[in-house]
Amino acid sequence: MIVAMLERATEEEIQNVVERMIEIGFNVHRTTGAVQTILAGVGTPGAFSHDDFSVLPGVSEVIRISSPYKLAGRSFRPEGTVVRFANGVSVGGQEVAVMAGPCSVESREQILESAKLVSAAGAKFLRGGAFKPRSSPYSFQGHGLDALKLLREAGDAHGLLIVSEVMEISQIEMMMPYVDLFQVGARNMQNFNLLRELGAVRKPVLLKRGIAATIEELLLSAEYLLAGGNYDVILCERGIRTFETYTRNTMDISAIPVVHKLSHLPIVGDPSHGTGRRDKVPAMARATVAAGGDGVLIEVHPNPDKALSDGAQSMFPGKFAELMNSLRIIAPAVGRTI
Amino acid sequence: MIVAMLERATEEEIQNVVERMIEIGFNVHRTTGAVQTILAGVGTPGAFSHDDFSVLPGVSEVIRISSPYKLAGRSFRPEGTVVRFANGVSVGGQEVAVMAGPCSVESREQILESAKLVSAAGAKFLRGGAFKPRSSPYSFQGHGLDALKLLREAGDAHGLLIVSEVMEISQIEMMMPYVDLFQVGARNMQNFNLLRELGAVRKPVLLKRGIAATIEELLLSAEYLLAGGNYDVILCERGIRTFETYTRNTMDISAIPVVHKLSHLPIVGDPSHGTGRRDKVPAMARATVAAGGDGVLIEVHPNPDKALSDGAQSMFPGKFAELMNSLRIIAPAVGRTI
Amino acid sequence: MIVAMLERATEEEIQNVVERMIEIGFNVHRTTGAVQTILAGVGTPGAFSHDDFSVLPGVSEVIRISSPYKLAGRSFRPEGTVVRFANGVSVGGQEVAVMAGPCSVESREQILESAKLVSAAGAKFLRGGAFKPRSSPYSFQGHGLDALKLLREAGDAHGLLIVSEVMEISQIEMMMPYVDLFQVGARNMQNFNLLRELGAVRKPVLLKRGIAATIEELLLSAEYLLAGGNYDVILCERGIRTFETYTRNTMDISAIPVVHKLSHLPIVGDPSHGTGRRDKVPAMARATVAAGGDGVLIEVHPNPDKALSDGAQSMFPGKFAELMNSLRIIAPAVGRTI
Amino acid sequence: MIVAMLERATEEEIQNVVERMIEIGFNVHRTTGAVQTILAGVGTPGAFSHDDFSVLPGVSEVIRISSPYKLAGRSFRPEGTVVRFANGVSVGGQEVAVMAGPCSVESREQILESAKLVSAAGAKFLRGGAFKPRSSPYSFQGHGLDALKLLREAGDAHGLLIVSEVMEISQIEMMMPYVDLFQVGARNMQNFNLLRELGAVRKPVLLKRGIAATIEELLLSAEYLLAGGNYDVILCERGIRTFETYTRNTMDISAIPVVHKLSHLPIVGDPSHGTGRRDKVPAMARATVAAGGDGVLIEVHPNPDKALSDGAQSMFPGKFAELMNSLRIIAPAVGRTI
Repeated sequence: MIVAMLERATEEEIQNVVERMIEIGFNVHRTTGAVQTILAGVGTPGAFSHDDFSVLPGVSEVIRISSPYKLAGRSFRPEGTVVRFANGVSVGGQEVAVMAGPCSVESREQILESAKLVSAAGAKFLRGGAFKPRSSPYSFQGHGLDALKLLREAGDAHGLLIVSEVMEISQIEMMMPYVDLFQVGARNMQNFNLLRELGAVRKPVLLKRGIAATIEELLLSAEYLLAGGNYDVILCERGIRTFETYTRNTMDISAIPVVHKLSHLPIVGDPSHGTGRRDKVPAMARATVAAGGDGVLIEVHPNPDKALSDGAQSMFPGKFAELMNSLRIIAPAVGRTI
Repeated sequence: MIVAMLERATEEEIQNVVERMIEIGFNVHRTTGAVQTILAGVGTPGAFSHDDFSVLPGVSEVIRISSPYKLAGRSFRPEGTVVRFANGVSVGGQEVAVMAGPCSVESREQILESAKLVSAAGAKFLRGGAFKPRSSPYSFQGHGLDALKLLREAGDAHGLLIVSEVMEISQIEMMMPYVDLFQVGARNMQNFNLLRELGAVRKPVLLKRGIAATIEELLLSAEYLLAGGNYDVILCERGIRTFETYTRNTMDISAIPVVHKLSHLPIVGDPSHGTGRRDKVPAMARATVAAGGDGVLIEVHPNPDKALSDGAQSMFPGKFAELMNSLRIIAPAVGRTI
Repeated sequence: MIVAMLERATEEEIQNVVERMIEIGFNVHRTTGAVQTILAGVGTPGAFSHDDFSVLPGVSEVIRISSPYKLAGRSFRPEGTVVRFANGVSVGGQEVAVMAGPCSVESREQILESAKLVSAAGAKFLRGGAFKPRSSPYSFQGHGLDALKLLREAGDAHGLLIVSEVMEISQIEMMMPYVDLFQVGARNMQNFNLLRELGAVRKPVLLKRGIAATIEELLLSAEYLLAGGNYDVILCERGIRTFETYTRNTMDISAIPVVHKLSHLPIVGDPSHGTGRRDKVPAMARATVAAGGDGVLIEVHPNPDKALSDGAQSMFPGKFAELMNSLRIIAPAVGRTI
Repeated sequence: MIVAMLERATEEEIQNVVERMIEIGFNVHRTTGAVQTILAGVGTPGAFSHDDFSVLPGVSEVIRISSPYKLAGRSFRPEGTVVRFANGVSVGGQEVAVMAGPCSVESREQILESAKLVSAAGAKFLRGGAFKPRSSPYSFQGHGLDALKLLREAGDAHGLLIVSEVMEISQIEMMMPYVDLFQVGARNMQNFNLLRELGAVRKPVLLKRGIAATIEELLLSAEYLLAGGNYDVILCERGIRTFETYTRNTMDISAIPVVHKLSHLPIVGDPSHGTGRRDKVPAMARATVAAGGDGVLIEVHPNPDKALSDGAQSMFPGKFAELMNSLRIIAPAVGRTI
């Protein structure tokens, strides 16, 4: 921690800050320049809030030097994390992982048809929602356990891994037999109780960035999972909220190279939620792969016009197959395959 | 719903849209101008997604006309809602409600001292956190049930109502005997399962705006509570995330007159979280009252320098009393008392 | 400047950074902790870019310590700046300054009528636009020199100072005889050539914050004026762009206390542009004064329904007089008069 | 225009709105539903402000139906615009255009060396700044006319077209003999006087999106150029301001497919300003091409460490050549060549 004092700070104010830094466990190096005094705190103090120093008399600015996450930081595992699954598929390695399927599981026929078509196009994961709390109290809310069973059946029938969203601690145990990858949605990125429980689970977690979350906050949420002992974490960029209203969110493609620099964790992109409109999905899926993303998560529906949720952002099967072909052309540009 | 067709839309595309509008229950009025066709859907169709229309061939734009919330809208109760509490205190009426206290309940002594001082200064509610999931996995997490009991004791001792945050469905029942007002935090504003449960509770709820939530989304979350039968809802502005980094959030004071126009629900301001720094709290508390806010929610601590959480944004007792005096001067400017 | 090195930085990388810091004129203090090395640069080097250091090998983070503005900083003039005008009116002193009038000067009758009514209500400045480049190429563009003459006439007739926007260097000389306060609009906040010229002028400048400008950038733009020798600068908050779309901009009321802490310059609020709707103006004008603003800039039109520009945000005369009365109640809460 | 009346609007209020719509030239279609009345204005009225209707008594919402730009809209030229240059190079056609070079022209040697290396790597345009107003008043400000001459010499020596930024109307004539493409910077995107002058020029213009500008505002600024008779307009995405602070701006890659849908104008990406850091440039340049961008604008410097401006975001020559190779792999995925 660095504390820059105001130019007009008194010696007494400086001493007060120094004492409090020492009190919480810092070694303090003092640098007095022509205009101001700078205090560098070195060492590993216990938990404290930088803000508490920023409001002390005579303080101009408090700067955190070390990143607030440790286990999620690149230096913890410089070679990068590869999340490996039972069937040999992995995320974060040579291959770009494709996860696809409908927003929600609507029927046995729908999910089997979805699994068949995304598998044929080259996806390795089947996505599908079982629980669907919606922003309006008047909408379809998901089929729950039945949906999970259908997902598993469809996945097994077509050799696909299953990724589905967990929304509450109480659902974890119910989902365990049916999913290969727990998805934590954007709204739950800072549901720390849920993260703590998932940290204790021995299954990989796909952690989506909240629409108002900085990259640092995303990594801090990942830290919760890692701190609990679950190192199989995959991050996901799915759009942030900005002033631009034409797209539902602004997909922050630059988060991909940034995460790759700051962290060892793989990161995939979700262009369906990132844009909210199916006609924008292919461009943003291609951008994700071109920027070095470790995978894509795409909504595909056998019949988007009849989808019970998110139809507008679900791709038609034919368009999805075309997209896969273009991704195969791009992957080698970043030294990957698909 | 209004559907504006593209200038180049074909008659077939227009017919297709008309048919789908009728299918879901709209009466359709067609207006054909020199350049484009506009379809106005009138009536009360079932649940559907406007986005689904926006991706149909030939469609330029889809515009929702009626607001997505009904019960939370001003026209549902044009005279405005006044939330009344057992001891005669109310929020949304003539008096500006002051809710104050520490971020978390730390000890019996601390909360009793807090209650005494905020009561003496004129507050009617004592706030204090019992559960404290934090953004870092390495921080103080709250005293739970013990904290609730201490809050109640302190409130009763000084004639204060109790407001405290509920973070999970499982906490509702535990909190019932101890709190007068359930607070839903910004991160849970779209935790729809929690909102649904609170809709069934017979106690008022203070619903905080999420840092990335529009005012419309805030009202839609309130709709969940009202739809469940709980009409005693108080909204709270506590800052939104913007590009400005000097303050932790940007407190959107204009949300106060906007909510008063769009909804019948009262709205209070939380300048402590809205700014994150105690030296900015008085200015923003005054602005809240001057803008017509129905109350303020302020962090005050007997000894902020020793607070276990949020010390930097907690006010010193003396400063809080000064602030109360200035609020008393302002209230008459908006026809209120304090 | 503080340079925090990566944990894995080599001694060679550290030496390279040290040498470059010395090269540009810093004295370097090196602090080596258990995990990383921190380099503090002290002294007053010439112009350089912090970013250039951030991309050097082995660097984790570069932190600017001293603020990039000097003359605009609070420590340059701790007692605060009071901008004084010929007729004894001042901004930044005891009295809250009220500036009011129509968006544009439309006719002699309109501006005389405006001057009369704002003066009667207690305003000390008459505002009015002479040049109106609009975001659509198809709109009213202002009456230029004629408008300036009418402004002066109207101001003199009613004892009002004149504030009007300057949009190009070429307009400065033309405006000099007619205005008392040059307004720089939000879009020109970073028009550095214009600022440089205005720095050489011996008339006060009202500098509006850009809709995407941080408070620091606003102060850096003020620095241009001060560096040119013009110390009579008044800042103006008029709303920033955020994700909220209900209001045209989000007026950042907290910028008022922040500017008062960081700078000695006075700051006024413009609730007309800050909200874009006349029914939100009174609440935000009151909030501005309650937050400690040094003045308000308000659009008032004798007949808003017939205004050639910005009619929707212009107040009716009667409502403006009412607002003035409520501001008179609030001012004493912050130790001011009106 | 659609005007949705409030549920509680009186017949008198409705009539008043209808009359005003007719007054400005609309034909009005009235639709009265169970809950509210909707007024659809059809026809081509003169200039007016939608906001003026939104504040009329009884009005709930006013919705603009037709886009505010006409000439920039896709329907004006559905086949898309290809901007053609003297030497046969074009932007918006089959080939992805690469524009590269240093931030500013520093010396004859530097710009000749730059031209040589970017040409060798496959660029078709040489970029370089002659005028450099900076956000700090204490920085390098550009070499002006001398820089323009050097750019032309370097371009001619290596068969490159010249793109350089124009910042004021007075510079247009001076630049005419030296540049092939006028660049309008992000800060000038809404400098409507400058746009009007460039509309009268017979040379292509590269219009950068402002950091707080919506896509619609970008197209409205392009409209100024087209309305003036200059149809050779190339748009440029270079990052918008968001809450994320790790990158200087958030490059909005989704603006590329959005612009392609809404407009016939080509759009290129500027990953150098979009990220502010050279290590993020390759990922975002690749994303630009993968998303269907018509070109990229990249800062390359023979010796970035010694650059007088923007060194941190300038690529090293070797890295730029590598990037070009990866772009050549990606282009076929979107049916393009490079």
